[in-house]
Amino acid sequence: MTALQLLRFQMRELFEPASVAVIGASQESNKVGHIILRNIIESGFRGPLHPVNPRYQEILGLKCYPTVTDVPDEVEMAVVVVPAKFVLQVMEDCGRKGVKAAIVISAGFKEVGKEGAELESRLGEIAQRYGIRVLGPNCLGLVNTHHHMNATFAKESPKQGNIAISSQSGAICVVILDWAASINIGFSKFISVGNKVDLDEGQLLEFLRDDPYTKVIGMYIEGTDRGREFLHQAEMTSRVKPIIALKAGRTSSGAKAASSHTGAMSGSDRVYDAAMRQAGVVRVKNIEEMFDLLQAFSTMPLPQGEGVAIVTNAGGLGVMAADACSDHGLALASFEPATVEELRSKLPPAASLYNPIDVVGDADSQRYDQAIRTVMKDPNVSCVVALLAPTDLVDISSVAETLTAFAGSSPKPIVTSFVGGKEMAGPIEMLKTAGIPNYPSPDRGIYALAAMIEHRRNMDRAEQAVIRRLETDQDMVSDVLRKVRAEGRLQLSEAEGKRILKAYGISTPQEGVAKDLPAALALAQEIGYPVVMKVESPDIAHKTDVGGVVLDIDSPEELERSYEVMLSQVRERLPRARVTGVSVQRMIRGREVIVGMVRDEQFGPVITFGLGGIFVEIMKDVTQGIAPLDNAEAERMVRSIRAYPMLTGARGRRPGDIKALVDVIMRTSQLAMEFPEIEELEMNPVMVGDEGTGVTAVDALVTIRGERQ
Amino acid sequence: MTALQLLRFQMRELFEPASVAVIGASQESNKVGHIILRNIIESGFRGPLHPVNPRYQEILGLKCYPTVTDVPDEVEMAVVVVPAKFVLQVMEDCGRKGVKAAIVISAGFKEVGKEGAELESRLGEIAQRYGIRVLGPNCLGLVNTHHHMNATFAKESPKQGNIAISSQSGAICVVILDWAASINIGFSKFISVGNKVDLDEGQLLEFLRDDPYTKVIGMYIEGTDRGREFLHQAEMTSRVKPIIALKAGRTSSGAKAASSHTGAMSGSDRVYDAAMRQAGVVRVKNIEEMFDLLQAFSTMPLPQGEGVAIVTNAGGLGVMAADACSDHGLALASFEPATVEELRSKLPPAASLYNPIDVVGDADSQRYDQAIRTVMKDPNVSCVVALLAPTDLVDISSVAETLTAFAGSSPKPIVTSFVGGKEMAGPIEMLKTAGIPNYPSPDRGIYALAAMIEHRRNMDRAEQAVIRRLETDQDMVSDVLRKVRAEGRLQLSEAEGKRILKAYGISTPQEGVAKDLPAALALAQEIGYPVVMKVESPDIAHKTDVGGVVLDIDSPEELERSYEVMLSQVRERLPRARVTGVSVQRMIRGREVIVGMVRDEQFGPVITFGLGGIFVEIMKDVTQGIAPLDNAEAERMVRSIRAYPMLTGARGRRPGDIKALVDVIMRTSQLAMEFPEIEELEMNPVMVGDEGTGVTAVDALVTIRGERQ
Repeated sequence: MTALQLLRFQMRELFEPASVAVIGASQESNKVGHIILRNIIESGFRGPLHPVNPRYQEILGLKCYPTVTDVPDEVEMAVVVVPAKFVLQVMEDCGRKGVKAAIVISAGFKEVGKEGAELESRLGEIAQRYGIRVLGPNCLGLVNTHHHMNATFAKESPKQGNIAISSQSGAICVVILDWAASINIGFSKFISVGNKVDLDEGQLLEFLRDDPYTKVIGMYIEGTDRGREFLHQAEMTSRVKPIIALKAGRTSSGAKAASSHTGAMSGSDRVYDAAMRQAGVVRVKNIEEMFDLLQAFSTMPLPQGEGVAIVTNAGGLGVMAADACSDHGLALASFEPATVEELRSKLPPAASLYNPIDVVGDADSQRYDQAIRTVMKDPNVSCVVALLAPTDLVDISSVAETLTAFAGSSPKPIVTSFVGGKEMAGPIEMLKTAGIPNYPSPDRGIYALAAMIEHRRNMDRAEQAVIRRLETDQDMVSDVLRKVRAEGRLQLSEAEGKRILKAYGISTPQEGVAKDLPAALALAQEIGYPVVMKVESPDIAHKTDVGGVVLDIDSPEELERSYEVMLSQVRERLPRARVTGVSVQRMIRGREVIVGMVRDEQFGPVITFGLGGIFVEIMKDVTQGIAPLDNAEAERMVRSIRAYPMLTGARGRRPGDIKALVDVIMRTSQLAMEFPEIEELEMNPVMVGDEGTGVTAVDALVTIRGERQ
Repeated sequence: MTALQLLRFQMRELFEPASVAVIGASQESNKVGHIILRNIIESGFRGPLHPVNPRYQEILGLKCYPTVTDVPDEVEMAVVVVPAKFVLQVMEDCGRKGVKAAIVISAGFKEVGKEGAELESRLGEIAQRYGIRVLGPNCLGLVNTHHHMNATFAKESPKQGNIAISSQSGAICVVILDWAASINIGFSKFISVGNKVDLDEGQLLEFLRDDPYTKVIGMYIEGTDRGREFLHQAEMTSRVKPIIALKAGRTSSGAKAASSHTGAMSGSDRVYDAAMRQAGVVRVKNIEEMFDLLQAFSTMPLPQGEGVAIVTNAGGLGVMAADACSDHGLALASFEPATVEELRSKLPPAASLYNPIDVVGDADSQRYDQAIRTVMKDPNVSCVVALLAPTDLVDISSVAETLTAFAGSSPKPIVTSFVGGKEMAGPIEMLKTAGIPNYPSPDRGIYALAAMIEHRRNMDRAEQAVIRRLETDQDMVSDVLRKVRAEGRLQLSEAEGKRILKAYGISTPQEGVAKDLPAALALAQEIGYPVVMKVESPDIAHKTDVGGVVLDIDSPEELERSYEVMLSQVRERLPRARVTGVSVQRMIRGREVIVGMVRDEQFGPVITFGLGGIFVEIMKDVTQGIAPLDNAEAERMVRSIRAYPMLTGARGRRPGDIKALVDVIMRTSQLAMEFPEIEELEMNPVMVGDEGTGVTAVDALVTIRGERQ
């Protein structure tokens, strides 16, 4: 598959083919091969279109050919709907014909088990050999509304719009199309990716990034094979336009269903979460949230600030919206005095002039209009949500009509929540037709605004993000790893691990080994008290258990005393252990944290950070980031754990050296990037000293990759 | 208000009046006084109905009287719609007329400020004097569909059904009515409670509990004044029928909007949460969740077990539902072998026979029917969710029609999620008309099932809950408190606090005071080492800060040494402090926890539990319960903190004495109930020893209530 992955060509031929063949076209109107042909015709495709099927002379008024090679003209793109067993032959034909791109609709590949997987891999080989770009197999097809091409077998034909959809499930495609048909939402591209033998989400993002017709991208993902490439493309794309992603199989029971469904391996969900957040992808939890966000991003400009203004004719709805703001970490805008004065002059005395603005149950459309226009002018307001309850005095349609004026023209986004049922249907239709996103409950409107604000923040952050390479001694690391490999080991000793850390500028405690008491005293003098003393023995694995570790030795006298006690304890408990001396280490004080790295199958090096001990083990208070990390992301990791106040000086302690800690995380990230053979790394504990005094890794566990078949 | 609160009468006259007067009725069709009269007529009210207004002779064909006292017949219930300033006079008239119940629609009371609040309090006095039951003021009115009485001014007239609604916001009433009108949902009672001068949610629950027409109760609450009574009634009611409550003003910004809206004080949300959970109330976060749950509880039987079966024609939807199950802590049912065999015989080879069951994209209604009937028989299945994507091959209406057969008859609940838009509208209408709750996304259907399962669990738990009074020495506590009060103090000393704990069977460390070293040595010998020694001085508040505390003294020698060092340190730092001796206390080892009690304005004594130190202060890992606690609730509190594994033997430690800890929490609860003058109590730390070794409160801080004006 690797060579195929390099293919960056023929996206144009796939999405905007000059000519198309439908291989497996049918005269029978309920067959997929008929529906696709008809959909292509009915969508207004302008180029030559050739049905291919040896059984027919003509379908839907078009001349039909026995094989694609029989088509006299050029065929840029082929839609393949033959049974799986004929697909390889058809692909060979396509290759010989010079077809540049193919949509393989046919099912019966990876999703049906081992045999199918083999067939799929041969399909990939043929495509690669001939250089054919392939979408699918096992997919619903592809729509490009601006090329007037609906090459799917869906009932609903999407209307033109600015949303691009990529979905790993054909059924979810159908769900989205049917949903879109019920409201005023249109699409630029609609892509069912199927089994992704060639084209996958990463490549699609690269293409959609520059697609002038696409304003927002929605993705349904069950699993990714090339996670890092996906992330890279997502990161580049989210700086330009929003990506809303629904990743199903989030949880263990969901993941089970996902793998029996498409055979996709679901990565660990926490890693997915970290990956998507870093890539600036807006991750939604369910399909309704996906719909909610697509509507807002598709129709509205991004908010340029933070504050939300709420306008309501019912206090209760205002309270709900305010609750939702708080849930999503949004601030209710504080209005300028001039705004409050203007509201006072325009609204009746019973109105509440502060956020949420209650225009009161008898509000008419003019009152809504005035309130909204007034707060829109306030510099502290970045977006508005207008709420309406069907009170007996309100003319709902008239309010809706007034609000439609804000569609398209308003520089600040506005969403509405007309809450109710029967009376609301007509007015809501008006709003949606005009392009004002309406939500059935206030919290969903607030959620949409929160996502837009978050996306705008991410774009700002992404603009500033730079990864500066830090000075390190790569040769030293290579030397250590070479020696370990030469000895046939995969596990580094603590000393080897620490040498690697030092080479990457991560402090470790000063230490040394002494063979007797006088040497230990001299060493401690050189290192400086307090020190830690540990027994040195090739026969003792768990030193603490046999009294072989003494912490916090403050003076030569204490060292002398501890030395005797320790050795006698060890001798008593393990009389046969060979004792070669003691190690003396600078005693490091500070707050214990853990910094680690593992390589995720999907996303590569994942950096983990958390407070040590119970915080990681019991409270599960850890955070992840995908390397390479920029400074902002490393800082975010440190700040995001619940126990963060422990590092900033809670309970009367001095603040810890956060800056040095962030530096250690960045250096760990760089090490992971520069030495892919390091499979796993854990520094536990890392001691964070007071501000300005640095951070020291007291222990290091490093594992390298074994040779793989 | 207290006497009014005792009124338990005249609910019948309010909800099922034999005769009604509308005071402030109007001939003008857009006036509230007209709409209410018309709604009562149009809803088919069968008793005598009298408009009252001095300006008219007749309204809507009914004879109109100048005042209610002019009505020749008896008037059981009055609807009052006159302006606020006339309400007191009208209530006096009602009193003299012998009216038993009144709905005061009029606004202009507590919600508009201090003057209104005074008016409202006088309204309450008049009602109390005459013994009139009052709903309102400032409300939308009341509907009793089974009495054919719609005494509201809402546009929509609710149809008959089994849902009772109580709402503190008139606008939310209107929202619910409008929503209900758009689907097949009906109501038994519909109550807008307004400012609650008399009738409040507690009393309504007491009434609705026995109402044979009500199957489920939905409440919108902004604030409660008599929280404990509400809780008590909710607890009694939730054993009989579900209560779904939306409490707005959850968060600080929401609470601000709530208090400016109705003047209601919002209690701390965490306390609300604990209170509702204990009372068996299903708390929803937003109005959509409220609608979702009302539908399910209204139409479906409760699940009798735990396992969920998922049937879908689209793998992607199945994954989403499985994700949602995991989010809500629900288990996918494991099918019996016989179930799998039966599914195998009935479904095509491509189908997935394990949960989620994928009946595949070309499934027809028969296949859905067979799959559902098969899993319904499985003893591990307690409920079913049927999912449908509008694939090109499915006849959606036919599947919907088949599913309607499960409405009303199925002993196990079934919910559906037909996901899409345009194609779904008709079939979804069919489902709803038949009484099958359908949800626009799978997770919302799973949420409804999860709430039903949780409610059933709560009912089981409630049946077993008994609070057994523990043996305590109340006289001793009374003695201590009497002495403290006599000395004009509100704060108890540590020793006094510990005496109270001892009286309630809570262990405290053995301790005593010694005036010199020999006495201290003797005392320590008596108590047994290890001990803690603290300086005794009336002049030293923070003993630790001046070196006045030594922990973990193991022997007489160490005590002697520590004694000298401690006293010299204290003398050095506070030369003028009078030192009267030292206290010697048994040194207690174990895991530090905190048990405390504060009195909430709404709900009374709230017991708090958490692990000590950083766990409470930084991780905010605490839980609350409202006293009196039963054993199950006290256990739940202990189990519910995130750090619970710290108490059960994580990290190689022996398990802690959870049983003794639960006992301490129960005793604290009992103390709070039996001594209402104790305002606040904190035991910090409480040391939890290893299993079987008990739990000891090392420190106790007790505050009693001051005399109040």
